[in-house]
Amino acid sequence: MRYELYYWPDIQGRGEFVRLALEEAGADYVDVARLPKRGGIPALMRFLESHRVEHPPFAPPFLRAGKLVIGQTANILLFLGPRLGLVPKNEASQLWAHQLQLTIADWVSEVHDTHHPISGGLYYEEQKREAKRRAADFTAERLPKFLDYFEQVLKCHPRGTDYLLGKAVSYVDLSIFQMIAGLRYAFPRAMARLETKHPRLVALHGRVSARSRIAAYLKSPRRLPFNQQGIFRHYPELDG
Amino acid sequence: MRYELYYWPDIQGRGEFVRLALEEAGADYVDVARLPKRGGIPALMRFLESHRVEHPPFAPPFLRAGKLVIGQTANILLFLGPRLGLVPKNEASQLWAHQLQLTIADWVSEVHDTHHPISGGLYYEEQKREAKRRAADFTAERLPKFLDYFEQVLKCHPRGTDYLLGKAVSYVDLSIFQMIAGLRYAFPRAMARLETKHPRLVALHGRVSARSRIAAYLKSPRRLPFNQQGIFRHYPELDG
Repeated sequence: MRYELYYWPDIQGRGEFVRLALEEAGADYVDVARLPKRGGIPALMRFLESHRVEHPPFAPPFLRAGKLVIGQTANILLFLGPRLGLVPKNEASQLWAHQLQLTIADWVSEVHDTHHPISGGLYYEEQKREAKRRAADFTAERLPKFLDYFEQVLKCHPRGTDYLLGKAVSYVDLSIFQMIAGLRYAFPRAMARLETKHPRLVALHGRVSARSRIAAYLKSPRRLPFNQQGIFRHYPELDG
Repeated sequence: MRYELYYWPDIQGRGEFVRLALEEAGADYVDVARLPKRGGIPALMRFLESHRVEHPPFAPPFLRAGKLVIGQTANILLFLGPRLGLVPKNEASQLWAHQLQLTIADWVSEVHDTHHPISGGLYYEEQKREAKRRAADFTAERLPKFLDYFEQVLKCHPRGTDYLLGKAVSYVDLSIFQMIAGLRYAFPRAMARLETKHPRLVALHGRVSARSRIAAYLKSPRRLPFNQQGIFRHYPELDG
């Protein structure tokens, strides 16, 4: 099965959580909007604007797998997890993995809203005052709450389990890696202050980044750099 | 199986999407925090603060089903859907239903942030100026976008199908009912303007509210009224 990922070609964004899963599994996939020939944003728009798509996505990312078109990042990972061996086989574990992924999705939205608290349709500069206020709340209240939660999930683990769901890596671990990497880029001062209290998350980030396929991916041109158009943006004035 | 729903006892909130599914199915359930004896917020907190819960939820609602504790509204519905006969049996339909539910979850968050654009930890009055700006963008841009999307999904249907996934009601239809009801409460002027362009959604709301178990639920004391503590709040100054 060759998977087709549809996502904006110039940012990591929400698509990156899917890219990391496909890369870790060594899956056969194409990142359609980044293909030199048929790619680009028009490839996305054909799906978003066509009235002939049976299950139209509301927004990227979406994945084409044979006849299926699947939208919503966490839903894509719910689908891919068992197929790529990135989640245990029993239903209870898959529900738990998905629950954690949905909590990460909420966290991602809150990160986004630190720089766009009023509207995704306005520039950052048009909502900078509100962004400063929201980001101050995020770094003081919400960021520690999310970090504490996932640190606690790791802490409750049976001994000898390196990953969130046990001995084997799951797509949730890859997403936590991405959160820590992105938060370090966007909020280096806040993270420097908070990381000492979350040693298990820091270790998990290191463990994921050292996995052979992930390490190769991070060094490849397929890994886009963080930038000021994605979810994680570095505005020093927002990093309290 | 007796299901136990854990949610704040005084608001519809995100818990209402689960309550509607349980009610439509005539499921055996208890709304734990609203039980007179062992209920209340302490019943929730025992789960949220205990370090002995194997799969701790980040926030309410969560559902106890035998040994399972499942968090995240859409994840609860993913679990309940096939068990309550509120989603078709094939995987493709279940992924599609879940994708729609996750889009509703995003919509719910945006509704919440119209009155709390800066912080959930501050009062509305402390962020009223920002709320006016965010609500203006919501009613002008985001609300029509979400309504257009779901109207389009209904429009693409095969003829003779009354509900989002076909001839039978699904949990997604119940959630759309709740969205329309809540939006009418929170933004009556904006909705009066927009509803004429979305006749299929208006008809779906009517169809769901006329179903016998839903109609009985809505008249019962189990249905909490909308109020100024939930997701949907009516502040006339936010209803442009």
